[in-house]
Amino acid sequence: METVAIVGVGLIGGSFALALRQAGFGGRIIGVSSERTIAQALKYQIIDEGLPLEQACRQADLIYLAGPIHSILETIPKLDACTREGALITDAGSTKREIAAAGAKLRGAQFLGGHPMAGKESRGVQAAEGQLFSGRPYLLTPAAEGDLETPAAREFLGWIRDIGAVPRVLSPAQHDRIVAHSSHLPQLLSTTLSGTLGRHSESELIAAAAGPGLVDSTRLALSGWDIWHDILETNRPSILEALDLFIADAQALRARYAGAELEADFAQGKEFALRLRNTR
Amino acid sequence: METVAIVGVGLIGGSFALALRQAGFGGRIIGVSSERTIAQALKYQIIDEGLPLEQACRQADLIYLAGPIHSILETIPKLDACTREGALITDAGSTKREIAAAGAKLRGAQFLGGHPMAGKESRGVQAAEGQLFSGRPYLLTPAAEGDLETPAAREFLGWIRDIGAVPRVLSPAQHDRIVAHSSHLPQLLSTTLSGTLGRHSESELIAAAAGPGLVDSTRLALSGWDIWHDILETNRPSILEALDLFIADAQALRARYAGAELEADFAQGKEFALRLRNTR
Repeated sequence: METVAIVGVGLIGGSFALALRQAGFGGRIIGVSSERTIAQALKYQIIDEGLPLEQACRQADLIYLAGPIHSILETIPKLDACTREGALITDAGSTKREIAAAGAKLRGAQFLGGHPMAGKESRGVQAAEGQLFSGRPYLLTPAAEGDLETPAAREFLGWIRDIGAVPRVLSPAQHDRIVAHSSHLPQLLSTTLSGTLGRHSESELIAAAAGPGLVDSTRLALSGWDIWHDILETNRPSILEALDLFIADAQALRARYAGAELEADFAQGKEFALRLRNTR
Repeated sequence: METVAIVGVGLIGGSFALALRQAGFGGRIIGVSSERTIAQALKYQIIDEGLPLEQACRQADLIYLAGPIHSILETIPKLDACTREGALITDAGSTKREIAAAGAKLRGAQFLGGHPMAGKESRGVQAAEGQLFSGRPYLLTPAAEGDLETPAAREFLGWIRDIGAVPRVLSPAQHDRIVAHSSHLPQLLSTTLSGTLGRHSESELIAAAAGPGLVDSTRLALSGWDIWHDILETNRPSILEALDLFIADAQALRARYAGAELEADFAQGKEFALRLRNTR
């Protein structure tokens, strides 16, 4: 792998470029983004040059699509005509079924979906950091058997390990079901909680009395609608299922609490919270 | 204020002692705790000596009750006979109505309820740190007018500011209503979410795919039942009200999402999340 094209040089794309460099990648990194973003990415030495999509595509051994989901879905079909032989196209989108379906239509290049479980409040190339993926799961969603066995896929997997991420393999459908629970449900709960408190008649006192727990609990509510619009649109059935599960559990807990103790609820909650901290 | 007695030298009590020292308190700090905790607190130089409650009470200008709520409720009546004239008794319990009622029965000493909005996963005196309260709200709940105007209360308020905390004054009933929303509701949502995911048939994959959002969302679920038993028992009506508000909002969001977009929900959630970060 000598040339990498990052399409969408924001927090994730920029961090992937920095992570590759820190892991010893000595080749060329091309950025495909708006003029303003390219100028910033060049200034921060995150990319070596900025090029239009088609020119970048013709030179790249790895094409890393790091924009929002709708832009990934629009970009994939454009890559069929320009990709080099043996090149790999991958993405960092937060849902995978629709993207995998678009990737499966490619004839001239291999597509392998991916989803790094990393992020932070700040966005944009100026927030990029080379350690963003370190110790975090990196979900890979091959659409067909053998997709991980090609030379390009094996090399990409090697770089994922080299940047410190923990690769995990799921089917695209399984991925969307899992992240509906592990990521999309927590997002909607944080958004709902924050809205509930913001609409409360004493919301100013609530904000003034906020401790670290509430700060953590409302961090996801800072996420932008521009990103979440696409996620919610492309994963509706699984997210509805996760919401229903949670609401039923919250109602049951509420009913138990009205008349009894919640010791078992606390024990179960703690058990999973510890388990996920030990699953690394 | 020359002598401070910390009753219950755990995370909060130990941190308060360290914070006082770092803020320049030059007097004596007595610890009242189990033998094992006193030995640790002496080793870490958090307290100057360990004494039984009554002896500590007789010497202290400030008695800081930092144990669990039930132990605060049991301790308050014992202090009436031993407190020095002009001394102040305060506490750091997470609910305030029942504690304020117990304090109001004291004849020999002034009681002023308090609640530092600080904490972390780790507990016990070995987790104590002098900066724990820095930048955090410190809720004060005077039961009667003038309670903040006595010399002892004024001096205590000065130390709260000196340790970097931000004092906020609420009535005990208002406090319990506010923290039901700002603290107890987020706790129960984290516990419920963690339980929902832990009971899911694919919980191992969910844990393996956890990103920083889920780690934050399940942090409160690590809290111990021993602390929460008392909180849930002494603030049931307000917590039930907060749960009902949230569940109704979650159901409404679920219904909207099934047929439309959630842009307004995200905007409202973000608005409050930003607001509470700017309320400092």
